[in-house]
Amino acid sequence: MPFELTRIFLEKMQEFIAQKDETSIHKILSGIHAADIAQIFRELSDKELLYLYNLLDEEKSADVLAEMEEDERERLLEQLPGDVIASRIIDNMDSDDAADLLGELSEEKQEEILLSLEDVEQAGDIVDLLTYDEDTAGGLMAKELIAVNEEWDVELCVREIRKQAEEVDEFYYVWVIDDDGILKGTVSLKELLISRSNTKIKNIADTEMPSVKTDTPSEEVANIMKKYDLVSLPVVDTIGRLVGRITIDDVVDVIKEEAEKDYQLISGITEDVEYTDSIFLLTRARLPWLVIGLTGGILASIVIGLYEGELKIFPEMAFFLPLIGAMGGNVGVQSSSIIVQGIAAGTIELQGITRKLFKDLKVAFLNGIFLSALIFLYNILISDSFALTLTVSAALFSVILFASVFGSLVPMVLHRLNVDPALATGPFITTINDIIGLSIYLGIGRLMYGIF
Amino acid sequence: MPFELTRIFLEKMQEFIAQKDETSIHKILSGIHAADIAQIFRELSDKELLYLYNLLDEEKSADVLAEMEEDERERLLEQLPGDVIASRIIDNMDSDDAADLLGELSEEKQEEILLSLEDVEQAGDIVDLLTYDEDTAGGLMAKELIAVNEEWDVELCVREIRKQAEEVDEFYYVWVIDDDGILKGTVSLKELLISRSNTKIKNIADTEMPSVKTDTPSEEVANIMKKYDLVSLPVVDTIGRLVGRITIDDVVDVIKEEAEKDYQLISGITEDVEYTDSIFLLTRARLPWLVIGLTGGILASIVIGLYEGELKIFPEMAFFLPLIGAMGGNVGVQSSSIIVQGIAAGTIELQGITRKLFKDLKVAFLNGIFLSALIFLYNILISDSFALTLTVSAALFSVILFASVFGSLVPMVLHRLNVDPALATGPFITTINDIIGLSIYLGIGRLMYGIF
Repeated sequence: MPFELTRIFLEKMQEFIAQKDETSIHKILSGIHAADIAQIFRELSDKELLYLYNLLDEEKSADVLAEMEEDERERLLEQLPGDVIASRIIDNMDSDDAADLLGELSEEKQEEILLSLEDVEQAGDIVDLLTYDEDTAGGLMAKELIAVNEEWDVELCVREIRKQAEEVDEFYYVWVIDDDGILKGTVSLKELLISRSNTKIKNIADTEMPSVKTDTPSEEVANIMKKYDLVSLPVVDTIGRLVGRITIDDVVDVIKEEAEKDYQLISGITEDVEYTDSIFLLTRARLPWLVIGLTGGILASIVIGLYEGELKIFPEMAFFLPLIGAMGGNVGVQSSSIIVQGIAAGTIELQGITRKLFKDLKVAFLNGIFLSALIFLYNILISDSFALTLTVSAALFSVILFASVFGSLVPMVLHRLNVDPALATGPFITTINDIIGLSIYLGIGRLMYGIF
Repeated sequence: MPFELTRIFLEKMQEFIAQKDETSIHKILSGIHAADIAQIFRELSDKELLYLYNLLDEEKSADVLAEMEEDERERLLEQLPGDVIASRIIDNMDSDDAADLLGELSEEKQEEILLSLEDVEQAGDIVDLLTYDEDTAGGLMAKELIAVNEEWDVELCVREIRKQAEEVDEFYYVWVIDDDGILKGTVSLKELLISRSNTKIKNIADTEMPSVKTDTPSEEVANIMKKYDLVSLPVVDTIGRLVGRITIDDVVDVIKEEAEKDYQLISGITEDVEYTDSIFLLTRARLPWLVIGLTGGILASIVIGLYEGELKIFPEMAFFLPLIGAMGGNVGVQSSSIIVQGIAAGTIELQGITRKLFKDLKVAFLNGIFLSALIFLYNILISDSFALTLTVSAALFSVILFASVFGSLVPMVLHRLNVDPALATGPFITTINDIIGLSIYLGIGRLMYGIF
């Protein structure tokens, strides 16, 4: 059964640490997966963390570090000298994890660690990987892979795999290359196990496997692996030479992070924070959007102020200010989120912007008619001002149309400009639609009261 | 390079279909992955779809069907007779995909297809799988797997794998069981390739691999596979017998769907819709939350109506109604989304509700002080009513505190009650906070104007 971190377990662990009871700690830690140990680390103080970490063997201490959250990892690495990081940690990591870890450190510390590494080839791999943008295939890939020549037979291939396998922790495909290192396809381990030993690799290789270039964005990498159900994806350079591979677990993280980022933007949070972060971080992540919201509110107050005369005579106009504002906001968020999800899934590329907006307009029209009719009925029954009844319904209808089209348009335009369309969701759309909605409402109100 | 569906490609394809140019179509389709063909299908009419589908060979037609979206698949299956579905499609599918597909059909159609299947063992597997809830490990797993006895040696094991491998498309682990079928561990294909042929499986098996029970919820399955970076996870019954396995590609879909569901809820959309869906579906998915928002707006108008007297005398009170409402909404959404994400990631379980709320209160306090100070400064400069200045600042501060705690509390309570906490995000929180925020503001206003 999977491990579950309970409060009782944690208290016991902290007790053992306080008593420096190494035997009990070793016994517990040896039965737990690195990912679980990383989770325990989250809950410990700096001192407890360092003590526990030093009790781990080399292999496991590297695994645990690879599993830790970035901020936790920094907390630990700050307490360790560069040569220890090199020999105990980096040396036991896959190149992609090692590059990620070094990427988080200062340039001086990076240099210190890289120069302390005994394996120069490994240091070279890491230096290579550090040159890639972390949001591209190059930034995701690892250098460790098993490659065989297409001209070999199965027997030679298996011999070669045995040799190469020592370096590589886990692998699911063997990549097939030609004499120039150009990627030709892949052979699954299953195929190697079930084929005759004199079969040529060429004849059992799958040549349809997709590949990506080092500069392919990680979001596209994730979409490709998801679409084709791949557990491993080869990365090639400009002329098609195999330079690395990306495994599904790294891409699962990308998918999670993308989803979380979009979720944070729509909920008005500007940084990647979690509930367990410090109060300062949580506040900092929330303030920027709130300040924008506040500015929007101030602008709204100015707009309303322009109609102070009307409000004095017809104070009931004020009753529906929040309704109009909120509906504009809600409709805008709905529209923008549908577009943002469509862009992320790559499903809305085939039509032009005008056609999309026209479709959105039709949906808004249906929603608008229905909701305006509802509020019209309500006001006919409740309000004794027909001018107000007409104003609220007409304004609600216009606001729904406007907010819907605007909510769709902004993310599409941002996407065209290569800006993350998710920026247009949440408080941004809400605030703008709030203000414009109120202007429409008050403008229609002035008109109506002029007529009636 | 991965395939990209362009408008030009699509038009050419439709031309070939219209001309019934089978040679050209075969040439195109043979070079494209099943997932890409499924994507092409989305853009075709019923007639084009059926024509194209019938040109695929059996193996590929099953693969394509497994890749299609649920609604598209239904559109196609409606046009095919039961025995064709059985022999051409189900027969070529893994049991999990087959069960998913059958689960979408009516009971009569299910029975018709199951009885037409020639392979009774396969039919039995599917019937077994259909009994599990689709949101559990049982609903995700496939029955096809390679299992070997822990007492065997590598050579016997490889021989057995060759035999079993015909049935199983792709596999990355071989599961190790004892004589009673109890799961004992796993052997990676890599290990089998590099071990000596007389090594006992027992000695190279990894016994630390986690497993799940058939009734483990899919969200937990996804968290486990993500946490331990697994590509395949064994499923056992109550007494520990191996009954199936879940692969990472199915879990990637679960992760995506979970994230999309939360995203939809926070953006006020009640159904799993996509941009490409019909106008009717899109409208239906958006209306419910809008009606709730409208009701909230009406309630707000009633609350404001209670203060009509004050608004007549001090119409400038109305200027800040949208600001207070919007800020309450924004803060509430921020708080609830942080809690919802924490619950989904399983990171906030260790503390009690009171401690969590207290932390949230501290964050809200900092945000509140800062924002109230800002609006206080603004109003001191702009407004000539000190009562209004005080009212807006005091109300904003109270609303931020209240909305924050309320936004955190509701998802936590829902979670305790085993209701999806994400229901508490988006328009729900916004609407309630809107109304309560306005009441606080107007109440404080009445008090202030009484004093000054």
